[in-house]
Amino acid sequence: MTRVFNFSAGPAALPEPVLRQAAEEMLDWHGAGCGVMEMSHRGKEFTAIIERAEADLRELLAVPANYRVLFLQGGATQQFAQIPMNLLGGGSADYLVTGTWSKKAYNEAQHLAAPLGGRARLAGSTEAAGFNRLLRADEMQLDPGASYLHLCSNETIHGVELGTPGQLPESRVPLVADMSSHILSRPVDVSRFGMIYAGAQKNIGPSGLVIVVIRDDLLGRAVPATPSVMDYKVMADSGSMLNTPPTYAIYVAGLVFQWLRAQGGLAAMEARNAAKAALLYDFLDTSDFYDNRVEPASRSRMNIPFLLRDESFNAAFLTGAQAAGLTQLKGHKSVGGMRASIYNAMPLEGVAALVDYMREFAARHG
Amino acid sequence: MTRVFNFSAGPAALPEPVLRQAAEEMLDWHGAGCGVMEMSHRGKEFTAIIERAEADLRELLAVPANYRVLFLQGGATQQFAQIPMNLLGGGSADYLVTGTWSKKAYNEAQHLAAPLGGRARLAGSTEAAGFNRLLRADEMQLDPGASYLHLCSNETIHGVELGTPGQLPESRVPLVADMSSHILSRPVDVSRFGMIYAGAQKNIGPSGLVIVVIRDDLLGRAVPATPSVMDYKVMADSGSMLNTPPTYAIYVAGLVFQWLRAQGGLAAMEARNAAKAALLYDFLDTSDFYDNRVEPASRSRMNIPFLLRDESFNAAFLTGAQAAGLTQLKGHKSVGGMRASIYNAMPLEGVAALVDYMREFAARHG
Repeated sequence: MTRVFNFSAGPAALPEPVLRQAAEEMLDWHGAGCGVMEMSHRGKEFTAIIERAEADLRELLAVPANYRVLFLQGGATQQFAQIPMNLLGGGSADYLVTGTWSKKAYNEAQHLAAPLGGRARLAGSTEAAGFNRLLRADEMQLDPGASYLHLCSNETIHGVELGTPGQLPESRVPLVADMSSHILSRPVDVSRFGMIYAGAQKNIGPSGLVIVVIRDDLLGRAVPATPSVMDYKVMADSGSMLNTPPTYAIYVAGLVFQWLRAQGGLAAMEARNAAKAALLYDFLDTSDFYDNRVEPASRSRMNIPFLLRDESFNAAFLTGAQAAGLTQLKGHKSVGGMRASIYNAMPLEGVAALVDYMREFAARHG
Repeated sequence: MTRVFNFSAGPAALPEPVLRQAAEEMLDWHGAGCGVMEMSHRGKEFTAIIERAEADLRELLAVPANYRVLFLQGGATQQFAQIPMNLLGGGSADYLVTGTWSKKAYNEAQHLAAPLGGRARLAGSTEAAGFNRLLRADEMQLDPGASYLHLCSNETIHGVELGTPGQLPESRVPLVADMSSHILSRPVDVSRFGMIYAGAQKNIGPSGLVIVVIRDDLLGRAVPATPSVMDYKVMADSGSMLNTPPTYAIYVAGLVFQWLRAQGGLAAMEARNAAKAALLYDFLDTSDFYDNRVEPASRSRMNIPFLLRDESFNAAFLTGAQAAGLTQLKGHKSVGGMRASIYNAMPLEGVAALVDYMREFAARHG
């Protein structure tokens, strides 16, 4: 068995110790005589698993006591619908659009707002600039009476990240943030948000799980057309178990949380992620063979899109990378080029191997 | 490691060869250099996995060409909402209630029907009889103009199964059946249904996956308040990949489908399941220590609830069973007593061990 350095944007590489433990426990979890996949979600074994997962996540993110943690299904895409169902409340919601994912969220809110008896409003967009940076303060027209203000704090496809609290829009309405592709990569001040959510398949665990952290005063506002299983209050009241949750995904996520704590938590992860990103960006910035077009202050530490200035080398670049054990580097079809997703589970050595390969490839073809 | 005989109603026991293969492939699937959990859902490896899973499922269930197979999230409970969203179309839907699960489906349809601009109608119920049998023809008042007729063909909690086509209600409207707890346990004539659906965590694989098989003329009828990710047509058009599907659960389900084919398919499984159920029912019927109150023609082969006539022995029965490696036999809290769920992955030896234990326990305490 040879493990590659897997730069997939998601589902993405997971820490090897997590996978080894999951494999070892597949047929028998802690002497239970069966694996986690085979356990009743209401039994004492799985109760211990989900309770520890929540406690570890709360500690990692320093979640305040007045926020609830929900383990849900359907991915961020289902949240795009669930958010207006739960939070629109017959009003108008503001959306900031800084890339493909925040645009999808806005489009879904537009699709649903009228049938739900409300409105979704575009409060700012960098689409005309090619989604290559965060919004500037003077580009946002915020509604102080909005039900909420939605943003995506890391755009997986365009490589734009809202990394520091100072980059958050000035607003008193509840902020709702899609953090799918950078959650747990750095500390975050949860109290600045009404709700944060993240599909698991980048920095948390397997796909099929989405995590919602929501301030408790935002529960109980769902409109009548909301399915019970999509009502945050119903799920909060039932401990995310109105029905059977995605138990195995929650278990693997819990192993990832334990691994993150063993690494030193989010401050330690931030230092490692900053070093990894700097290694690649510094190389890109000194290269005339490669190009990254995201403004420096808006650059993501997790998803780094780059172009070969001569795109005729793209196929050879990918073939050579694959042969060197560097996989999933092809950029999203909507932007072309390449993309290196370097989530928590990607070690510095993986990024170093990528930079070595890129330098060598450029020397051969430049 | 000692594996128990696990009688959990779900998440439930999986075939041991499936779990062994999943464990072996956890870090490296077929030389890909990463595990299935870490793969892009749009790459060639996962595409091969999902395509084979669908092909195997189609072969097992003999799915006609004019039906689509969808791999979705949210469990049967989310389908309880998704079905009226997609199929009500401003009309009225009929619901047959024969146990907890069909009642939940009906309640959710009632919850949503008015906001969606339609109606959900109770077309028959055995609740007054204690959910101990199927509905008789003269107990159903069917609306020939209904948008659809919903039923649950195996009630996991009450142990009532609609097993043969002759037990289906006479109706020309699209039949929609929740088959969560007996799908793949016996052949089924899919063409009799407009749609069948099943949460995976009983006879298919891990929780977090729900399978929908829907006739293609029923696609494209969703009301405007339907989230995109819950619109059957959108999901059918995108090959269940509007967003990231629950990839690992689909992979394990695919391994289960391969295992089922290796066992001889659904006709062979039906013979084994009939033998397993007969072993337990025959014992129950000759015992005056235990009791099963479901009418014989309505009895489930998958979920067999039973009572100790003297309930003061319940705790001792469960403790002794656990010590004998027979787990998860406690009945659902709503009905009490015991329940043995004996899905495809439960071998005949497991049922024989249970009957031996029950006989011995009765001899000691009877």
